[in-house]
Amino acid sequence: MQKLATFKPYVEITPTASIIVAQHGGRAKCLQRLRRLDMPLPKTFALSFEAVHDIAAGRMPDLDRLISLIGEVPLLSVRPSSEDPDWGGPGAILNIGMTDHRYEELIAQEGEAVASRLYLRFIQTWSAQVARLDEDLYESDAAPCRATIAAALRAYEAETDEEFPQDPAVQLAGVLRAMARAWESTSARLLRQGKGAPADAGLGLIVQEMALGVGPDESGSGVMQFIDPITGRAQITGRYLSQSQGRDALTDRAGAIYLTRDPRGPSLEELCPEVFDELVAFGERCRSRLREEMQIEFVINAGQLAILDAVKVPRSSRANVSVVVAMAEDGIIERSEALLRIEPRSLNELLHPQVDPRRPLRPLLQAIGASPGAATGRIVFSSNRAQAMAAQGEACILVKRETTPEDVRGMHAASGVLTEKGGMSSHAAVIARGLGVPCIVGANAIRLNRRDKSLKLPGGKTLREGETITLDGSSGSLIEGAVDLLEPSTDSALSTLLAWADEVRDIGVRANADTVGDARIARDFNAEGIGLCRTEHMFFEEDRLPMMREMIFADTAEARAEALRQLLPMQRSDFGRLFEIMEGRPVCIRLFDPPLHEFLPNDRAGMLELAGALGKPLGEVQRRVEAQQEYNPMLGLRGVRLGITLPEIYDMQARAIFEAAVEAECRGMPVVPEIMLPLVSARREVEVVRAQIETVAASVRAESGVDVDYKLGVMVETPRAALKADQIAEHSTFLSFGTNDLTQMTYGLSRDDAGRFMASYVRQGVFSEDPFHVLDQDGVGELLKLGADRGRSAAPDITLSLCGEHGGNSESIAFCREVGFDYVSCSPFRVPVARLAAARAALISADR
Amino acid sequence: MQKLATFKPYVEITPTASIIVAQHGGRAKCLQRLRRLDMPLPKTFALSFEAVHDIAAGRMPDLDRLISLIGEVPLLSVRPSSEDPDWGGPGAILNIGMTDHRYEELIAQEGEAVASRLYLRFIQTWSAQVARLDEDLYESDAAPCRATIAAALRAYEAETDEEFPQDPAVQLAGVLRAMARAWESTSARLLRQGKGAPADAGLGLIVQEMALGVGPDESGSGVMQFIDPITGRAQITGRYLSQSQGRDALTDRAGAIYLTRDPRGPSLEELCPEVFDELVAFGERCRSRLREEMQIEFVINAGQLAILDAVKVPRSSRANVSVVVAMAEDGIIERSEALLRIEPRSLNELLHPQVDPRRPLRPLLQAIGASPGAATGRIVFSSNRAQAMAAQGEACILVKRETTPEDVRGMHAASGVLTEKGGMSSHAAVIARGLGVPCIVGANAIRLNRRDKSLKLPGGKTLREGETITLDGSSGSLIEGAVDLLEPSTDSALSTLLAWADEVRDIGVRANADTVGDARIARDFNAEGIGLCRTEHMFFEEDRLPMMREMIFADTAEARAEALRQLLPMQRSDFGRLFEIMEGRPVCIRLFDPPLHEFLPNDRAGMLELAGALGKPLGEVQRRVEAQQEYNPMLGLRGVRLGITLPEIYDMQARAIFEAAVEAECRGMPVVPEIMLPLVSARREVEVVRAQIETVAASVRAESGVDVDYKLGVMVETPRAALKADQIAEHSTFLSFGTNDLTQMTYGLSRDDAGRFMASYVRQGVFSEDPFHVLDQDGVGELLKLGADRGRSAAPDITLSLCGEHGGNSESIAFCREVGFDYVSCSPFRVPVARLAAARAALISADR
Repeated sequence: MQKLATFKPYVEITPTASIIVAQHGGRAKCLQRLRRLDMPLPKTFALSFEAVHDIAAGRMPDLDRLISLIGEVPLLSVRPSSEDPDWGGPGAILNIGMTDHRYEELIAQEGEAVASRLYLRFIQTWSAQVARLDEDLYESDAAPCRATIAAALRAYEAETDEEFPQDPAVQLAGVLRAMARAWESTSARLLRQGKGAPADAGLGLIVQEMALGVGPDESGSGVMQFIDPITGRAQITGRYLSQSQGRDALTDRAGAIYLTRDPRGPSLEELCPEVFDELVAFGERCRSRLREEMQIEFVINAGQLAILDAVKVPRSSRANVSVVVAMAEDGIIERSEALLRIEPRSLNELLHPQVDPRRPLRPLLQAIGASPGAATGRIVFSSNRAQAMAAQGEACILVKRETTPEDVRGMHAASGVLTEKGGMSSHAAVIARGLGVPCIVGANAIRLNRRDKSLKLPGGKTLREGETITLDGSSGSLIEGAVDLLEPSTDSALSTLLAWADEVRDIGVRANADTVGDARIARDFNAEGIGLCRTEHMFFEEDRLPMMREMIFADTAEARAEALRQLLPMQRSDFGRLFEIMEGRPVCIRLFDPPLHEFLPNDRAGMLELAGALGKPLGEVQRRVEAQQEYNPMLGLRGVRLGITLPEIYDMQARAIFEAAVEAECRGMPVVPEIMLPLVSARREVEVVRAQIETVAASVRAESGVDVDYKLGVMVETPRAALKADQIAEHSTFLSFGTNDLTQMTYGLSRDDAGRFMASYVRQGVFSEDPFHVLDQDGVGELLKLGADRGRSAAPDITLSLCGEHGGNSESIAFCREVGFDYVSCSPFRVPVARLAAARAALISADR
Repeated sequence: MQKLATFKPYVEITPTASIIVAQHGGRAKCLQRLRRLDMPLPKTFALSFEAVHDIAAGRMPDLDRLISLIGEVPLLSVRPSSEDPDWGGPGAILNIGMTDHRYEELIAQEGEAVASRLYLRFIQTWSAQVARLDEDLYESDAAPCRATIAAALRAYEAETDEEFPQDPAVQLAGVLRAMARAWESTSARLLRQGKGAPADAGLGLIVQEMALGVGPDESGSGVMQFIDPITGRAQITGRYLSQSQGRDALTDRAGAIYLTRDPRGPSLEELCPEVFDELVAFGERCRSRLREEMQIEFVINAGQLAILDAVKVPRSSRANVSVVVAMAEDGIIERSEALLRIEPRSLNELLHPQVDPRRPLRPLLQAIGASPGAATGRIVFSSNRAQAMAAQGEACILVKRETTPEDVRGMHAASGVLTEKGGMSSHAAVIARGLGVPCIVGANAIRLNRRDKSLKLPGGKTLREGETITLDGSSGSLIEGAVDLLEPSTDSALSTLLAWADEVRDIGVRANADTVGDARIARDFNAEGIGLCRTEHMFFEEDRLPMMREMIFADTAEARAEALRQLLPMQRSDFGRLFEIMEGRPVCIRLFDPPLHEFLPNDRAGMLELAGALGKPLGEVQRRVEAQQEYNPMLGLRGVRLGITLPEIYDMQARAIFEAAVEAECRGMPVVPEIMLPLVSARREVEVVRAQIETVAASVRAESGVDVDYKLGVMVETPRAALKADQIAEHSTFLSFGTNDLTQMTYGLSRDDAGRFMASYVRQGVFSEDPFHVLDQDGVGELLKLGADRGRSAAPDITLSLCGEHGGNSESIAFCREVGFDYVSCSPFRVPVARLAAARAALISADR
């Protein structure tokens, strides 16, 4: 704070004054820009952060010049000016300088009604914001007059035991002190810190000559902007209200008129065509010179236009993309700047239906928004029911305590998913994001009763199966009934922006895609290939599960192979369709990964059914199901361990991949499939499976006469695999870092179980972020770097990539780029985000 | 093999001949040493490895000198000479050179009976080992005579269509070729590789002039040694048999006589006092000059002593310690050599009862010996039953599918533990080793039926509760009924050896001890302190569990603290007793670590009981028990995460520790307790808990007026904690690497679940060793090194150690020493092993 000491406590905003955002705030700087653009701005002064801080601390600076101003101009207003407008600040206070004396003068000039309105407004604002009295101290139903003012002054005196201040200097000092202190209150500080403000964020104040907006001839105030804030389309919107001040035109919709000619009523364009033209010209000047779509606050005083303020138009993400692309196309900004102006995360809003932010809704409950977008549908409590509803073309919301791999089809069928347990990285959250299905998790406050199919909400309300709810996976709120949703953008602006991103970025973007649907989305979003095709979901299909179980129950390698032989044609067609959709782009297939018990029933009914299907006694089925249980399935017999222990599974999968590749070759669209081994922790695991797969390749080559080519690589997801990446790289053409599991193992933390304490951990600052959400560059990142370096040291041409949830995250992408990865792979719906984030990372790094 | 080319195919063993172990084998070298000691050795020749390899390959070297020898001496013997006697080799073949012609000569010299015995022996050996005919080709009941020989020669001719070879040169070549080929057979190679032999291990052969042991005057053969092979005590043992050859004296016990005077029968000492004295003198010469207790194979030929061979006496580990300590005390070897001669692992045999290796037993089943020692007791199938039996003073063997933390008390009560599931690192194995209870795990072949309390064995046999079995946790075999066991050693030799080890070693050894019993063993084994006191077992006690559950079910922090207040005096007394037993030595207490659900019932009956105890509806208890369940408990809400989420637990524990320390101070035996935080993954976790604990310390100081001192450190068991050891070290006075969990997380492998495939993984060579058994120096070890370096970089005086199973393993101890750790901590029963291993590591490294 000491270096601010050289700044004057306040300075008049002139084109040449020294106004600095970090000392006077953004509004002060913006006002100076408006002045430089020759906008008709009233006299304006900016108080520095330091001065305001002093005022809050009880050290009132010398305000002589400002006080003398009160004699020169009718009245003053004070508005906040923080470094970032998002950080909030105290409300503006208008009409400072209104005293009994000035009241009488104003009555003489403008009449009793106008003068009384201004005085009453000031008394009310002062009482609420400076004297901190009860808001309903003054009746305000009737039009104010002398009697109202007298009553208000009496009420003020009765409440405070003091006369209403009659010295303008005292009024100004009081206003400044109140606003300074409001900024430094604990609640305001916490609120802005929540929006990313530093602990010592400063507040500047703008003291401005009032343009009254009331008086003779046409006087009034209004707000004007040049785009639709939802779509971003060019369109003049806003309101004007005669004989008004501040933002009255926006709150008093009844009296306000349109700006442009409108069949629905009168307009400013008709009322004051010159002023309107002037405003339009100012707007255009703002756009081209401030390089931003501004919302202009203006006043007409006796037919004369005054511009009081201009702020960036508050807008949806979709509008933001349109605006930015339009400005770049108009040559106002560079394409690179367009890319840098869009926060990649904000694209999520464009890709999914959204709850209309303009309609305030009271949610039934608030939990963790785990997969963006909104959906309306009927409540169902099981995946089977969800599939049945979907089959009838009926939208539904799947509500479960938590989801398991068996629910994936149900989640696919549902329009939205709500779970009682879990966090950002729970099964439901991860899968929903992958599927692009809106999802809320961690709704701990609900009580699910599956027996009577009901859902008890915290307030005591109960929802039943079949009732309609709307789920907002962006905000995490659950809303009763159906709600109008904003459909995803079909503007070309997004694809234009992403095309520009592709020109700039220097790291590839692939998609994680397991199904035909995923693959289509991936291709439509221009993913450069599939970076991770998980094959386990393929075995949960209703027609395959029985064969899978037969395989698990097989007693010999031959019986296992026999069961798997039935799955082969299905698996081949799975891969064949993916190859077809991806049109020759690379497809990286991860071999079977999960523990086998995920495929077995866990209740008596399911086991009884299975016993019947297998023709085995229930006792044996129970015993063998039990034998498959694991203490820590995440750390058990899965991945390559399963591939080595029961080699028939990988043999079948490799054969399916190679045969599908042969078919693709014969269709004239050759593909070089990539085969990825999960959960590797030692070099020898790769050697063993590699030999096994090469044998299968050789026999498919011999049978088909086609020289099947393929790449074999490793998913690096154990810390040991990262440490031994040099040894592993000797047998791999690529290493793909699976940061989900790698994070779990590096922290010793299961993402499914982390939900129980992660939120409080982050809130307490024990972890700065949820490492499943934001890549832990410090810890997990070191293993990534180390793995990449060691991998390259052994095999300089090895392809390096990151797959998993973090692949769609901007910080992770920048990190991967710096570590020199070839590509990232993320959920199909995050591909646009990743393309933009990759471009931004390249631009930011080039700028350094 | 090429560099061997300079070696002659064979060389006569003379004091100055060039005999090299790596070229001629250990027996050749030993025979040369005997010759140098002027022992009466017959003419002896050594064939080099290269020569034998050539013979096996069909390239017979020039054997002229050996063949001519057959003319000079009566007969020849051939014996194997590999580099290490443990690697095995073909059996010796005696009496080479026996032909019809020599037979007649021998009849003339020694009579028909003797000559026939020698000839028949050779025909039989040749048939079996050279011609590879059926063993029972020749009847051998009656005393052999001319007729027997004629029949045998006819049988041979009938079987082979060839005459029995009558050329001594052909006989010798045949024997050499057969023995050379036997060595190179696949089964022999696999067998010796299992004992650590390299793939290309060579075999030398010893060709020796026969000392017949049959003939006029006193002739015969015998074996003599100077210690008891079980206890190691000095004592002449062995047998002598007149008119015999080879090791006949050991197999034909009926005819053999004692060596020393014995009331039970005649002795060599009486029969041939001069020969006896000569033998004793030779034995002493061997001991002092060969610096080893040798078993001497001798022959008396017409009253003249000949020494044929001498080998190290096969002996128990206990005997080995006695022998080695006695030799060092007699000044024959240095103390350092004594330390280097004892394999630390072998001490396990001295510390637990053992099955007598001299009695061959047929086991009921063979599984994984997970905790050494043998125990006999009645079968029980539950921990409660085990405790009840123990209360009645009845030994029992606890048989379970697998054990859980709730079984610890039962395991403590049992004499032995057998589990169907699990591997070397399963819960049962780890806990049993810690408790020193013999244990077998992974008995997959058994079928447990808890309902009718029976145990079905692979052969179909069924054992029931109450039946007696004997379990050998060293070999992994289960034996029916009771078996005589060898009691653990009470010799002073072990403590002498360990005292020498303590003088040499330069890394500390502490014990992992949770209970008073553990602590006493630790102190008795001279552990330098407790390196890891796990506190969770303390809460499973019958009188504490209800309070623990009350704490888990508490809805508020106050209710939790209230429940914990009841546990405080018990916990304080736990620590107080440990401090008392350890007499001021450091005690490192790990704060509460396991997930809370381990303390909750998991069946309906248990929950019903709990609901009654807590006065809550069953439904709520079920719901809350369910809410505590975790997908991967290993990676869930436990350790420091629990300490931060429910701070009342650590508050109580810290208070108990400090109050116990105050009491110790008042007793005049001050202690500086060490508090260790489990499962840390980020610096901030340490900061948060540290502040919390310091508050407790301050209030105990204020209440007691005693200036409680303590150390706070971190158990490094997540890869991230190792990576961030520098940051963590800033807030820690010690870092103790918990390699059990660190291995699990580095590999992404739960030790409880690894049992299902680890054995086959190691067998297939996918992992060279079970990393839970032998520290993975390459992967986990790198994290240890890196953590140690980073920890020291931030805090040069930080204390570094390793706790966990690996702490008692020789290789790990050598590794820890090299990385510069201050101490290792291991199960109390492994403290002697660790002390010796540490000394050996220091000696070996000083020698480099």
